[in-house]
Amino acid sequence: MARPDDRAPDQLRPVRIQRGWLDHAEGSVLIEFGGTRVLCAASVQDSVPRWRRDSGLGWVTAEYAMLPRATNTRNERESVKGRPGGRTQEISRLIGRSIRACVDYKALGENTVQLDCDVLQADGGTRTAAITGAYIALADAVAWMRGRGMTKGEPLITSVAAVSVGVIDGEARLDLCYEEDVVAQTDMNVVCTGDGRFVEVQGTAEGRPFDRAELDALLDLAAGGCAELTVLQQEALGR
Amino acid sequence: MARPDDRAPDQLRPVRIQRGWLDHAEGSVLIEFGGTRVLCAASVQDSVPRWRRDSGLGWVTAEYAMLPRATNTRNERESVKGRPGGRTQEISRLIGRSIRACVDYKALGENTVQLDCDVLQADGGTRTAAITGAYIALADAVAWMRGRGMTKGEPLITSVAAVSVGVIDGEARLDLCYEEDVVAQTDMNVVCTGDGRFVEVQGTAEGRPFDRAELDALLDLAAGGCAELTVLQQEALGR
Amino acid sequence: MARPDDRAPDQLRPVRIQRGWLDHAEGSVLIEFGGTRVLCAASVQDSVPRWRRDSGLGWVTAEYAMLPRATNTRNERESVKGRPGGRTQEISRLIGRSIRACVDYKALGENTVQLDCDVLQADGGTRTAAITGAYIALADAVAWMRGRGMTKGEPLITSVAAVSVGVIDGEARLDLCYEEDVVAQTDMNVVCTGDGRFVEVQGTAEGRPFDRAELDALLDLAAGGCAELTVLQQEALGR
Amino acid sequence: MARPDDRAPDQLRPVRIQRGWLDHAEGSVLIEFGGTRVLCAASVQDSVPRWRRDSGLGWVTAEYAMLPRATNTRNERESVKGRPGGRTQEISRLIGRSIRACVDYKALGENTVQLDCDVLQADGGTRTAAITGAYIALADAVAWMRGRGMTKGEPLITSVAAVSVGVIDGEARLDLCYEEDVVAQTDMNVVCTGDGRFVEVQGTAEGRPFDRAELDALLDLAAGGCAELTVLQQEALGR
Amino acid sequence: MARPDDRAPDQLRPVRIQRGWLDHAEGSVLIEFGGTRVLCAASVQDSVPRWRRDSGLGWVTAEYAMLPRATNTRNERESVKGRPGGRTQEISRLIGRSIRACVDYKALGENTVQLDCDVLQADGGTRTAAITGAYIALADAVAWMRGRGMTKGEPLITSVAAVSVGVIDGEARLDLCYEEDVVAQTDMNVVCTGDGRFVEVQGTAEGRPFDRAELDALLDLAAGGCAELTVLQQEALGR
Amino acid sequence: MARPDDRAPDQLRPVRIQRGWLDHAEGSVLIEFGGTRVLCAASVQDSVPRWRRDSGLGWVTAEYAMLPRATNTRNERESVKGRPGGRTQEISRLIGRSIRACVDYKALGENTVQLDCDVLQADGGTRTAAITGAYIALADAVAWMRGRGMTKGEPLITSVAAVSVGVIDGEARLDLCYEEDVVAQTDMNVVCTGDGRFVEVQGTAEGRPFDRAELDALLDLAAGGCAELTVLQQEALGR
Repeated sequence: MARPDDRAPDQLRPVRIQRGWLDHAEGSVLIEFGGTRVLCAASVQDSVPRWRRDSGLGWVTAEYAMLPRATNTRNERESVKGRPGGRTQEISRLIGRSIRACVDYKALGENTVQLDCDVLQADGGTRTAAITGAYIALADAVAWMRGRGMTKGEPLITSVAAVSVGVIDGEARLDLCYEEDVVAQTDMNVVCTGDGRFVEVQGTAEGRPFDRAELDALLDLAAGGCAELTVLQQEALGR
Repeated sequence: MARPDDRAPDQLRPVRIQRGWLDHAEGSVLIEFGGTRVLCAASVQDSVPRWRRDSGLGWVTAEYAMLPRATNTRNERESVKGRPGGRTQEISRLIGRSIRACVDYKALGENTVQLDCDVLQADGGTRTAAITGAYIALADAVAWMRGRGMTKGEPLITSVAAVSVGVIDGEARLDLCYEEDVVAQTDMNVVCTGDGRFVEVQGTAEGRPFDRAELDALLDLAAGGCAELTVLQQEALGR
Repeated sequence: MARPDDRAPDQLRPVRIQRGWLDHAEGSVLIEFGGTRVLCAASVQDSVPRWRRDSGLGWVTAEYAMLPRATNTRNERESVKGRPGGRTQEISRLIGRSIRACVDYKALGENTVQLDCDVLQADGGTRTAAITGAYIALADAVAWMRGRGMTKGEPLITSVAAVSVGVIDGEARLDLCYEEDVVAQTDMNVVCTGDGRFVEVQGTAEGRPFDRAELDALLDLAAGGCAELTVLQQEALGR
Repeated sequence: MARPDDRAPDQLRPVRIQRGWLDHAEGSVLIEFGGTRVLCAASVQDSVPRWRRDSGLGWVTAEYAMLPRATNTRNERESVKGRPGGRTQEISRLIGRSIRACVDYKALGENTVQLDCDVLQADGGTRTAAITGAYIALADAVAWMRGRGMTKGEPLITSVAAVSVGVIDGEARLDLCYEEDVVAQTDMNVVCTGDGRFVEVQGTAEGRPFDRAELDALLDLAAGGCAELTVLQQEALGR
Repeated sequence: MARPDDRAPDQLRPVRIQRGWLDHAEGSVLIEFGGTRVLCAASVQDSVPRWRRDSGLGWVTAEYAMLPRATNTRNERESVKGRPGGRTQEISRLIGRSIRACVDYKALGENTVQLDCDVLQADGGTRTAAITGAYIALADAVAWMRGRGMTKGEPLITSVAAVSVGVIDGEARLDLCYEEDVVAQTDMNVVCTGDGRFVEVQGTAEGRPFDRAELDALLDLAAGGCAELTVLQQEALGR
Repeated sequence: MARPDDRAPDQLRPVRIQRGWLDHAEGSVLIEFGGTRVLCAASVQDSVPRWRRDSGLGWVTAEYAMLPRATNTRNERESVKGRPGGRTQEISRLIGRSIRACVDYKALGENTVQLDCDVLQADGGTRTAAITGAYIALADAVAWMRGRGMTKGEPLITSVAAVSVGVIDGEARLDLCYEEDVVAQTDMNVVCTGDGRFVEVQGTAEGRPFDRAELDALLDLAAGGCAELTVLQQEALGR
């Protein structure tokens, strides 16, 4: 069965990266994975959370959210509901952990970079687009800090990119769109560093449990996708 | 004293209107008043709130919000604070009231249009850009409804546009940017219909109380600005 | 068509002002505009909010609320709902802004006056009665501070009073009662200083948009009403 | 040691009862126990909570709250804090339980009476004044219902009144004012029916545990106080 | 009519006390009154709340809660509801007040003991089992503090125990189980010190008001029950 | 380097399973993985959530929570904070997804099983102990339902067990205790079915990114641990 957009199983959707989309943020990028559109903003603060003070170390944290009409049908705002939902918090925590894997806190100095990933439009893979874009926003914010002498050495040890993979009709596929996401038997999000190691592996049997062979196939596919995204990140950053 | 962007006192900032910015929403527009950028989405629902049921009448409502890094410095998310702030609610109510002035509820049928105005970047006048853009998103949603036979006659009696005016160094100015907004002695937001009548007039003495002459000058300026925006709305809608 | 209480269109309802209604508050007044009854209390604190510290400047703020059975039918308590509603916050902000227009922060010293306006009974015009009463409570609190040497010169530059006006059956009327308020085509709240200048002008088309002539008539009526209320405030304060 | 207001140990403070203080409520009373001033409003609804439907039985419930400046120093509003405090809820529950002791739910029909007790000024004994006043508001609301044929027989089996007692310097005293309340070693609130039986007895050792003899003395004193309040309630109700 | 478990009217349910049920807490006990099972944990902190600082005095506080399936039918979690319910807060306050009656704050030093009473299974009398168990957890925590030289003399002036009593079919009964609790006409919780004085007496007419004779009978019964529990506490503590 | 409790790298901690720990719940188990102690309760309801009605399908959901003193130092209650934390919600969602992998909704009929996993004491691996215990509670609840004719065929397709694995000093270890958990470079939670397939794989680089070889070693170790736990579950269930 062909994919909805006729991609090969191991093919990413078109990726579009617009750096500097915001005038005020120290780093910002509008990243698109096909129809998924995430605005990532990096905000620099010359202080750290209370529990981190006088440690000489910096901090990086992230928040994820979705505009109410990012999806097919409107969702109520979480500010109106009175709290961020479980899914929102889970993804915020995932983005934070993933991005922190590329940071040298000592080189960052006692500064905080807050990453805001707001999904303007959702078509599957919002969390992986958010991570991939957040790294670029962070890189720009770090460059901004370097220009102001706020860093001590290189705060970015490596880069980080993420992609989703899944099994549909027994076929392992890369970078699922929404239509594929809802029918996948197994769904996995993988975060890799620029040198191809794993930061996060989150696999879930949506339909039926998966065996080791399927798991291995998905990991291979994801590693390849992350490597491609790493190249696109480097190009966007003009390296 | 010249304006920060060298505009004449009665000159609007460049207005940019991109219709259909979202794939899923029944109506959507990305509207820019200079550096202010608001994404307006209209969501149609074929039902009305409980208090409105079996009345044969429709409903239109609005919510306004700002992304955390829309501004110079980052603001905490209202979902994290646990409630929309007073300013947010006040502006949401203003947009709803303003937009409802152009709606014939009977012609709308027992349907609801929810308008979401999310400020992606803020540089003064976010609420007036939101109102001006929300009207266009609503017009597109109404066209969508008409195509599905959901309306009974013409639900839009008129159009609605809004602009801010203020007094700076004794001079009445149209469409304040952020830099002007913070130093204005008097700040006024005016919402007008397409035929030049008033829907809302909200004037506030920020610095010192204002007299009737100043009030009159501001009202003249605002009426002119709204008339210009009405033309831009009609052009964007291809009329 | 006659008014429900047979008043002339430009006639205020009977105003009753009882100073010192509370034993503990530094200033307090029970103010009545006809059936509308608002208890205004001024609380003095010899400190200022964090963002104001070491500025040498004082602060004045306000909160508005309504008892659950102030109205015809009972409203749920906002403490039980878990947050102040949008209308409550909007009016609290309006009262605060209005009252601050008469304050010299330097003369107030680094002290805060908190104004609490609690509506015991509502019959239209609660926000304007609250502003008119809050000024008196503030004046008494300032006198109390002066007696303790907490002020530096005169903290009250002017006085502030407020009134509602509206158009009903094409007629501009002063100080609407609830019965009139619900049928008004246009509804406006105006806040003036003792010398007749404007602090706030908030006009809303409830039924149909209004033109400049109607707006002018309403502004004239409101200015007259505020002037009368200013006289009553001065009398109540024994000046 | 004399009492702050020179009362005898078994003497109530002056009690003032103003019925019909509100125009809209089906029953209302402003009750004063010395400086304590509580506005009690009874709201009738011709329905019952979901869990009570189709039972043929009515319901009575109560909410207690305090205005922010009822006390010597200002308290933050519970709506702003986001929830009613523990003390508030505890007293609301006490008032509800106490008042329900005098109600025949069958005779009330499937109607609800909601009692709102708002403390305008606090000088000790606010909960006992609230219960004593709430009974009168309820009696007026029941009369209102009777006039509309909403009741089936007599919904009020008895009356209910409440008073505080306490031990100060070894002396048992009736109806403590705030100054006494804060120094009492033992503090007790007692709710009695009109025929002298107990509905609630809540005794707390504030300073040191109390023995049976002290407990007995306090119960005697409270029973006498409640009997006096019952007479005042009947007089106020014109019986 | 016999009791559900054939006890005599003045007989406690089997009491089981397991000290040291938790590995980390400074004091902990799993206490059972028949089918009621409460886990009490005492946590020591070498600081006091802000309002208590630099007073040389310690503090003791308590929180009560129930697991969702402690009861016959599942209750929603209070964390999910967004706030502790009124009953929960009322009981937390009762436990705190009761336990504080046996504490010498000076001897405790500027330390806080937080008591957590979590009901794992409920079969009536959860608050009295919680108080009785919390005293033991506190005693163990105080011993732990003494071993670290944190105390100045003996922080425990006395012991505290609690029991419920009630009138069922005209008979006064000790230590009601759930089945009895729901049918009791009068329900009373009594907290006593080890030397037999009263700390709290909370009697409520559930069905019909009670007279002085009934009250006296219940107090006698409760005092006896607390005396028995005091013996069991001392045995458990190996005294 | 030896493990804190001298276990072999591939050795589970002592597992203790007490079925029927609660009298009221349709299924309940107190499960211990070493010092970790989780009370799992299954509550049966003969209805399904609104979105599931009239589908002929059942539902299974889970909530996870921790008592405040389950850990070394006390944590504030989430009911007091006003919302379940991100970690709590994330684990609740994980347990729900994991357990649902063994359920045939059709055979369950239109009934809901709610699983409550409350951590009484935490020493690492609380979420995996919760999943392993929740399956047993569910099995007992399903047996209870079968006895009442509520099921249609066999609702449990398979069993589910979970274990944590991690890399410490380069060594892959099974079932980490808290002391190991905090120093692990990589931390992974794996959920398997009784027949050895994967339901969830969640690996996180805590210290440094991990390569494919490490990932493979951890997956092998986890699969073995889950197989052992499956045997223990079957024994506990008397199969």
